[in-house]
Amino acid sequence: MAKNIQSLERAAAMLRLLAGGERRLGLSDISSSLGLAKGTAHGILRTLQHEGFVEQDAASGRYQLGAELLRLGNSYLDVHELRARALVWTDDLARSSGESTHLGVLHQQGVLIVHHVFRPDDSRQVLEVGAMQPLHSTALGKVLAAYDPVAHTEAMEAERQSFTPHTVTAPEEFESMLELIRARGWAADMEETWEGVAAVAAPIHDRRRMPVGAVAVTGAVERVCTDGELRPDLIAAVRDCARAVSRDLGARRF
Amino acid sequence: MAKNIQSLERAAAMLRLLAGGERRLGLSDISSSLGLAKGTAHGILRTLQHEGFVEQDAASGRYQLGAELLRLGNSYLDVHELRARALVWTDDLARSSGESTHLGVLHQQGVLIVHHVFRPDDSRQVLEVGAMQPLHSTALGKVLAAYDPVAHTEAMEAERQSFTPHTVTAPEEFESMLELIRARGWAADMEETWEGVAAVAAPIHDRRRMPVGAVAVTGAVERVCTDGELRPDLIAAVRDCARAVSRDLGARRF
Repeated sequence: MAKNIQSLERAAAMLRLLAGGERRLGLSDISSSLGLAKGTAHGILRTLQHEGFVEQDAASGRYQLGAELLRLGNSYLDVHELRARALVWTDDLARSSGESTHLGVLHQQGVLIVHHVFRPDDSRQVLEVGAMQPLHSTALGKVLAAYDPVAHTEAMEAERQSFTPHTVTAPEEFESMLELIRARGWAADMEETWEGVAAVAAPIHDRRRMPVGAVAVTGAVERVCTDGELRPDLIAAVRDCARAVSRDLGARRF
Repeated sequence: MAKNIQSLERAAAMLRLLAGGERRLGLSDISSSLGLAKGTAHGILRTLQHEGFVEQDAASGRYQLGAELLRLGNSYLDVHELRARALVWTDDLARSSGESTHLGVLHQQGVLIVHHVFRPDDSRQVLEVGAMQPLHSTALGKVLAAYDPVAHTEAMEAERQSFTPHTVTAPEEFESMLELIRARGWAADMEETWEGVAAVAAPIHDRRRMPVGAVAVTGAVERVCTDGELRPDLIAAVRDCARAVSRDLGARRF
């Protein structure tokens, strides 16, 4: 099998490094983090800077991610078939539920948010498109782990961090939760990721019946739960939305 | 001067190719577009795919942009100081004006939208973060061309396309428009980019008095204009917002 191109792999590692943790790094930090000679690291950074993938602060000389990544990320969304099919349905779901909706796909070891509709009220909200969510604790992540074998492997092999006292981390307990999700056809996140926040998600399938993503409604427990349980009307609405998007992607109805 | 790394330059060219035009391309299209041997192009594509920058459709074998770009683009936004400082001010501007607001920075030959606040009504709107706007016809672009020498050069050297009968394309006319913008401190787009849409923008400066971006209010001419002129209260609100963000970036008040 042919080898991958080393300078490209190193450039990708630099971008990942700049995307996590400190986010503004000097040449020494970058070269030592990646175990590269300074000259090698500098050659890659200079090319990345020339292409707009990296920017260098004039005052400090530190490097950070560049604007071209935002432009390319936007182009990625433009060509995203699932997202395009889901736009209207997730919008309707946010309106009818009065809560925010998210569309997520498996990416690396987590859920990548590819669409986010704000809760339709006057509150200030932060757009989460492009953000990652954990697989083991969020409703979107659990749906993917329950239905997508690759996501399942990722979730089982990962260190399942405890975000709140409600997060399920033990392997057996996590597996039986996934079984319940497959039996019911939807997943819940009852303050397992964020204190005070609950969510319900359902899987989206394509024409080959493959799980290609998930849709969720997320909100304050006081609003989305009654007597400590998710409101049945919200569960039904999320599942309706997921079925509608699946049908638009060519999935058969039965 | 040391040379840039060829495989990285070629990889960046592939991503740009996939971001424009067709967006789903086969190996032959990519190699012939970039003048590369198929084997060379395939090696780069395979590495890009392995790193998540490119995805290959299982059915057609065609390549498209990958999810990692969205994740990195989101990280770029997280570290963007101008955007962070402008979040609250642009939100307030959208509320007070009742129209959508945009924050833009110079990128390549255009304006890159780094923040977009929806018009605060119930209408369905498409998020434009990561999208590009032309320099010569939009209010954001004209502000940048008027205040940033690099943007000015880009706008003068570019082919200034005529989008509507109102677009200013002749060099002399364009230059005197920029002079007026500098004299008044704000720029207008009176149906010069989109029929029926007008906008007003003002420049944002940092602590070194450098123009680092622009903020705009955009809306239907019926709402944002009176007697064929932009509403003075909107112009004042946009300039107030730009001054507030500039102060937060450390610009002096006088």
